[in-house]
Amino acid sequence: MKENNTTNSINIKDIKDPHFLRELNYHQLEELSTKIKKEIIDATSKNGGHLSSNLGVTELTMSLHRNFDFMKDKLLFDVGHQCYTHKILTGRDISKIRTKDGVSGFIKFNESPYDIFESGHSSTSLSAALAFAMDRDNKKENYDVVALIGDASIANGVAFEALNNIPHSKHKVIIVLNDNEMAISQPVGGMSNFFRLFQTSRGYAKFKKGFMKALSFVKPLYNLASRFKNFVKRHLIATNLFDSLGFIYIGVVDGHDFKALDKAFKKAKKTNASVIIHVRTKKGYGYPLAENDKTGTWHGVEPFNIETGEPLNPHLNEISWSKLYSEFVKERLASDEKFYLICPGTLVGSCLSDLIKMYPMRVIDTGISEEHAIVLAANLAKLGYHVCVSIYSTFMQRGFDQIAHDVARVHAPVVFLVDRSGLVGSDGETHQGTFDSSFLFATPNTNVYMASNKNEAYQIFDKAFKNNEPTFIRYPRAYIDKNPIDKKYQLKEFNLIKSGDKKVALVSVGPLTSKLLEFLISTDITIINPILLKPMAKSLVNELLNYQNIVIYTPYETSNGFAANLIQELINNHFKGAIYTKAIPLKFFSHASIDEQLNDCELLPAQVAKFAQDISHRSH
Amino acid sequence: MKENNTTNSINIKDIKDPHFLRELNYHQLEELSTKIKKEIIDATSKNGGHLSSNLGVTELTMSLHRNFDFMKDKLLFDVGHQCYTHKILTGRDISKIRTKDGVSGFIKFNESPYDIFESGHSSTSLSAALAFAMDRDNKKENYDVVALIGDASIANGVAFEALNNIPHSKHKVIIVLNDNEMAISQPVGGMSNFFRLFQTSRGYAKFKKGFMKALSFVKPLYNLASRFKNFVKRHLIATNLFDSLGFIYIGVVDGHDFKALDKAFKKAKKTNASVIIHVRTKKGYGYPLAENDKTGTWHGVEPFNIETGEPLNPHLNEISWSKLYSEFVKERLASDEKFYLICPGTLVGSCLSDLIKMYPMRVIDTGISEEHAIVLAANLAKLGYHVCVSIYSTFMQRGFDQIAHDVARVHAPVVFLVDRSGLVGSDGETHQGTFDSSFLFATPNTNVYMASNKNEAYQIFDKAFKNNEPTFIRYPRAYIDKNPIDKKYQLKEFNLIKSGDKKVALVSVGPLTSKLLEFLISTDITIINPILLKPMAKSLVNELLNYQNIVIYTPYETSNGFAANLIQELINNHFKGAIYTKAIPLKFFSHASIDEQLNDCELLPAQVAKFAQDISHRSH
Repeated sequence: MKENNTTNSINIKDIKDPHFLRELNYHQLEELSTKIKKEIIDATSKNGGHLSSNLGVTELTMSLHRNFDFMKDKLLFDVGHQCYTHKILTGRDISKIRTKDGVSGFIKFNESPYDIFESGHSSTSLSAALAFAMDRDNKKENYDVVALIGDASIANGVAFEALNNIPHSKHKVIIVLNDNEMAISQPVGGMSNFFRLFQTSRGYAKFKKGFMKALSFVKPLYNLASRFKNFVKRHLIATNLFDSLGFIYIGVVDGHDFKALDKAFKKAKKTNASVIIHVRTKKGYGYPLAENDKTGTWHGVEPFNIETGEPLNPHLNEISWSKLYSEFVKERLASDEKFYLICPGTLVGSCLSDLIKMYPMRVIDTGISEEHAIVLAANLAKLGYHVCVSIYSTFMQRGFDQIAHDVARVHAPVVFLVDRSGLVGSDGETHQGTFDSSFLFATPNTNVYMASNKNEAYQIFDKAFKNNEPTFIRYPRAYIDKNPIDKKYQLKEFNLIKSGDKKVALVSVGPLTSKLLEFLISTDITIINPILLKPMAKSLVNELLNYQNIVIYTPYETSNGFAANLIQELINNHFKGAIYTKAIPLKFFSHASIDEQLNDCELLPAQVAKFAQDISHRSH
Repeated sequence: MKENNTTNSINIKDIKDPHFLRELNYHQLEELSTKIKKEIIDATSKNGGHLSSNLGVTELTMSLHRNFDFMKDKLLFDVGHQCYTHKILTGRDISKIRTKDGVSGFIKFNESPYDIFESGHSSTSLSAALAFAMDRDNKKENYDVVALIGDASIANGVAFEALNNIPHSKHKVIIVLNDNEMAISQPVGGMSNFFRLFQTSRGYAKFKKGFMKALSFVKPLYNLASRFKNFVKRHLIATNLFDSLGFIYIGVVDGHDFKALDKAFKKAKKTNASVIIHVRTKKGYGYPLAENDKTGTWHGVEPFNIETGEPLNPHLNEISWSKLYSEFVKERLASDEKFYLICPGTLVGSCLSDLIKMYPMRVIDTGISEEHAIVLAANLAKLGYHVCVSIYSTFMQRGFDQIAHDVARVHAPVVFLVDRSGLVGSDGETHQGTFDSSFLFATPNTNVYMASNKNEAYQIFDKAFKNNEPTFIRYPRAYIDKNPIDKKYQLKEFNLIKSGDKKVALVSVGPLTSKLLEFLISTDITIINPILLKPMAKSLVNELLNYQNIVIYTPYETSNGFAANLIQELINNHFKGAIYTKAIPLKFFSHASIDEQLNDCELLPAQVAKFAQDISHRSH
């Protein structure tokens, strides 16, 4: 960093560490925040990523680095996708963010000593902060532990368990609640109602001044009915959820006002108990298109034109699998009054946000609360409703217990749309959807499907509601053609895609099957595409017993799910040939494109085609 | 039910349904409650079960059935183990409860139309209640939905997600909070601090009278420092967590006072929004030994002598696996200052409750909060502490996401003591510990062990802290001999228990191996006991390649974990012999003894020994 403190001289690329921030005046801070926002918009417009949340916390992150020294103090980002300003301030180039050659879009231990806590799934930062605070107090050291968490994340069960435990523990943690009243979709729940009480900027401060005045109203009201009493207490008396739990509460602070932030952090540092600073920010602040976004479209974006906001690759002739299934959902909502869709916080990502406006009573966003969403769905399904849960594979992990205990055990016929199954590319290690399948295969009473094309997808969705058992439909983060659907397509248990000789059968799961076929069209290799993955179709196993070599190609999961089950079935049926598995290796994948990730594990269709051909050539 | 309302004439065995309760006067209710408690004590003393919680809610359950008609209204028991009074009142004989020939110790759909919601894991009743309320309002019907939940359960993340969502949903639910300030172990967390504010019977009522008086103190105090202000608001003004979230709050009600309960339920029925009735009960009420229990020993009991409280089978020459590992933990707490034990609510069941008194700073009970406990443990481990998480296999399901995302992904070297792995007998479908293993095998970076004897167990526990990777030590709900441990025992990757010919190798996992050996001692069958289950030891696979037939005996998990992995390794190594798997079938098991459950799946050592011998005889 140059020593000259006029921001005109601050070149973003020259920033090595954030210590210079404390020397800047408010005007200089404002100027720098504009530069940082421009950098974030540039990088995101090129690489995609989390735009709105990063623009929302630019000033807040700068203020945190100005008021604390995070070489000593500890800063934990919840979810971690709002760390772009932090990366810039700690000397990282974000221009290639989320690409194989660039920095991660999340906090990463190996990028900087300032990155001390990794995440990707929400709501874990508070539990982690407690660990850091325990370590500090155990060593009798003196520094602050600060967790930055959003209003959607704090309403999740994990965060609540920590909120409940932290004041009891006596270890001081500073929680900065970034309340942007947006969350991933819309805020839901009683907790967000509480936030809204303080919605107007400075509302809380004004309110405090009115406190004594308000009290004079309380007495005559007090003898009224319970509900009104509770309302009065809640609205006129500033006790809230957080101080009920034992936190000191500071708020509401304008998260774009450097002076107000300075004041709040100074106050928080002085308290000797855990504190919550309630900061109001505006998502997308500084980029009008994102600022005015009401649906969350600008939360996570693909590369876009900065001027117009239009996507650079509009996928004109393609449709995403998410969009495809959302269209099936839409059709069902229109035709079936007993149909409910429950989605824990990912309506936008799964292309469902229009539907909640059309069917507000039957499309339910529970917020980031996978566990509650699944138990609710299970019980609605048991009551005779046709219930669909739309969820990302990686986030479904948080509901595994409920899938076993509340869905599968009681045969609740919930249909799960498992979006982003398989590798997910640039989100990296924390988001990959490669693990759900092994769990589903190891859970009784579950049905698991994966379509390889749109006609199958349509039929599977229809069949799922006739199964009368928990059904999981996996589909990837990918695009397919926009050709019309043949709604009369006959669904089979498996498809003999291409008949060859009996030397090699290639069992290929999911949409990459069609690409695989292109590479093998003129060979003698048999290609079979299973659609019903669990329970394993007997007809599939019987067919496979005829071959010398079986190659199982499951590029959307590890080998512990479909492949392991098929191998066991073959062994139980005394199969004596050779079996090869081409599945996602049991590891966590760094950010890169999905094709780069597949290539690294030799799972691209061309690679697997060659692998199968080599076996065929060696056999006789 | 006889029509004569003197309780002397009420024979517990004659009760068919609970409608008669509304005809009884308070004296008669008291007399009946005494009879019911006697029945519960009798049944539990014979069969084991949940004693304290059932004695605590006898009056409360009677009052619920008196004030509501649960053929129309809906009653949901959280966890479900406190349903004994409900079973009696709805015409069920509990004398053989929890045995194969008797009723379940939990709510069961197939036992009664009054049983409308099954559970076993805590904290799911509120989400389910919302589903029932949605169904009612959707059909424009008019009845009440009542969830009975304890103070430990309501502090779990799942319940919180529902608490957050219910007021927002506008569907009325009545939540009866059974606050017995005991929970499974001790209450922990800010929420329980809140409960304690109202600890004294009638304290809240008195407090309400003092409300106006208290307000006069507020003004001068208001200008003091934040913490004190918050304290004042919290303590003197009756706004609490629940009305912060948007519930009507009724409390505190004495849960053993029929008149007070009548009044509270009448009030709750009249409100037009969701309501929480805060009821104080005393666990074990009516059986002095259980009433005076401070540690939770009487929560779940084995058969006991009613007069003395002594167990009928004291296991004089045996020690439970839970106790064995708790002794290792104790040794480590004494010798290693960096050692922390974290336990989400099962300290008593895992024999750790003495240790929290000895080491209150390093033995941490987080309450029923598996998710928070695991994230906390992960981050302490990353900070260099030696961290052990003690958890039941079945409850660990609720932390699967955290095990993947927060532990395994970052190589946090947490050591998990996975108690009650395998079948668990009389707790039935909801508690079986047969599913964790498949998940652990499908998660990167995990180590999984299971000892077959005490010497191995001791060495595994020691080695776990040297692995520098997440390590899971599974052990069953069972007893072993009390012989001293050979602390110099050399741990191998696997044990060749008995060398035979090359026809059949029996790979036997876990403590039943020694019994298996007894049946096969004079045969030619080779018995191998793997200790390190994951990663699969190459030496084990290489050894097995020499055999014609391999029988994999894993009676503590389904085939999706160790068996599936071993089969894949054998196939990858071109094994051409036959492989047979004897593992827990993929299903949920009803209450019965563990031996009865094993017998039903032909997994008793004698059965597997015969199976292996038959193969040996057929081979040549």
